[in-house]
Amino acid sequence: MSRIVHLNGEYLPEDQAKVSVFDRGFVMADAVYEVTSVLDGKLIDFPGHMARLARSLGELGIQNPHSDDEWLAIHREMVARNEITHGMVYLQVSRGNGGDRDFVYPPADTPPTVVLYTWQKPQLIDNPAAETGWKVCTLPDIRWHRRDIKTVQLLYPSMAKMEAKARGCDDAWLVENGLVTEGTSNNAYIVKGGAIITRALSNDILHGITRAAVLRFAREAQMTVEERSFTVEEAIAADEAFITSASAFVMPVVEIDGVRLGDGAPGKVSRRLREIYLEESRAAAI
Amino acid sequence: MSRIVHLNGEYLPEDQAKVSVFDRGFVMADAVYEVTSVLDGKLIDFPGHMARLARSLGELGIQNPHSDDEWLAIHREMVARNEITHGMVYLQVSRGNGGDRDFVYPPADTPPTVVLYTWQKPQLIDNPAAETGWKVCTLPDIRWHRRDIKTVQLLYPSMAKMEAKARGCDDAWLVENGLVTEGTSNNAYIVKGGAIITRALSNDILHGITRAAVLRFAREAQMTVEERSFTVEEAIAADEAFITSASAFVMPVVEIDGVRLGDGAPGKVSRRLREIYLEESRAAAI
Repeated sequence: MSRIVHLNGEYLPEDQAKVSVFDRGFVMADAVYEVTSVLDGKLIDFPGHMARLARSLGELGIQNPHSDDEWLAIHREMVARNEITHGMVYLQVSRGNGGDRDFVYPPADTPPTVVLYTWQKPQLIDNPAAETGWKVCTLPDIRWHRRDIKTVQLLYPSMAKMEAKARGCDDAWLVENGLVTEGTSNNAYIVKGGAIITRALSNDILHGITRAAVLRFAREAQMTVEERSFTVEEAIAADEAFITSASAFVMPVVEIDGVRLGDGAPGKVSRRLREIYLEESRAAAI
Repeated sequence: MSRIVHLNGEYLPEDQAKVSVFDRGFVMADAVYEVTSVLDGKLIDFPGHMARLARSLGELGIQNPHSDDEWLAIHREMVARNEITHGMVYLQVSRGNGGDRDFVYPPADTPPTVVLYTWQKPQLIDNPAAETGWKVCTLPDIRWHRRDIKTVQLLYPSMAKMEAKARGCDDAWLVENGLVTEGTSNNAYIVKGGAIITRALSNDILHGITRAAVLRFAREAQMTVEERSFTVEEAIAADEAFITSASAFVMPVVEIDGVRLGDGAPGKVSRRLREIYLEESRAAAI
């Protein structure tokens, strides 16, 4: 079945959803995005994603083309039209097409380009990878320095994902000045002596929506959380490790640069946090 | 008159030239580009642009969809159809549409997306700005660290251009660790005691085609060229300054962060290099 894509208010078969070759998303990477998971036909952490979208757009001076209620209605329409039980909704907003390519922004009243599409992911909850855990490789973090803005400048994360796969890993952890920043499209954590350690928020990393929820649940469960940077050496010596993202939720990491953590199986903190996150976020889904 | 755009072998009115919302150029900034100037209906430095295009594509593992002869024929067709006497040809190649959005590259036989369009620039040679010179402001260089690959990740250069305009400047010079890297879409030079000083090639800057030609002409004219980094302080204390790019050729810089260089008029080395470049490159145009 062809997916239905949302493009600037229209619902189109995916092969008919096209944007101008002058769109700033295509020629300047002048666009931001969000990915929201759907479980049981409901949206997970939706207010968080809309808050981050508004922030990303605000940082770039792109007008938010919809209210949160309008975004919710569009997301629900996409879930319904594409019959998503478990899956994801992708949303991208570019600064639009100013009629020509120019480093100078087009007039402020240029309509942003809005695109949404969906993926069916029947195994989003019962993900076999969560049973075995991910292997990660470390690679240099050479991205730009506003990683808190969720832009489509994803070329390096994509290159790093390819390099990680070539090395037999599931993903890369990016390293700057000896310190882990984050994964290619997820936040990175280690667990040592019962403490959950993850880099503090700054311009250096994405402000993960799943990160915020998981840390809240961890603190509510009386777990120790340390928001600080950690080295690759510290990660390799950790008891366990994991990543969080809107599509992987909490995913255990069992190997870093070929070194197995603990007994090489997903750790108990990672597994427990995955359970709590799924339980709490499904209960709060809208 | 509507421009004619080249899209994957077709020549289309510009409002009909559209790419899929799944194109990796749109969702991942996974695309490279070139801009070639046209003077007197002929292409300037064309072999250099094609060599750099091939290098950019090679660095990203995107197949070059055309031979240099095919690219030349397409460029000439674009110049003819759009009746360009003085102007520019823009060329972009993305990794194409793998049928879905994924950090993992699509299969290697996925056709790249090829787009070309043109601009009429009657004043490309007799550019009034070359008579008065540019004012530049310095801003932090927070771009990714493979600036030698000419990708469409142009969000920060675009943001910097806007910030420079807001400060009353024509462009920004980007600064990293106290040293000037380059302009938002051009290479940066200072002149001190008769020596032309510009940053050496590395992953930190674009390998300018105009830069290569201008340095060759300068050396042929027995001028001293020093390829080394320089500080903002050194730039402000220089006798003169300029930038080079495929569209501005050699553009004098007369003010940096509000400080006038020399008497505030374009310097004689900058003016002479602009003359030589225009003369030599027009003679060699194809």
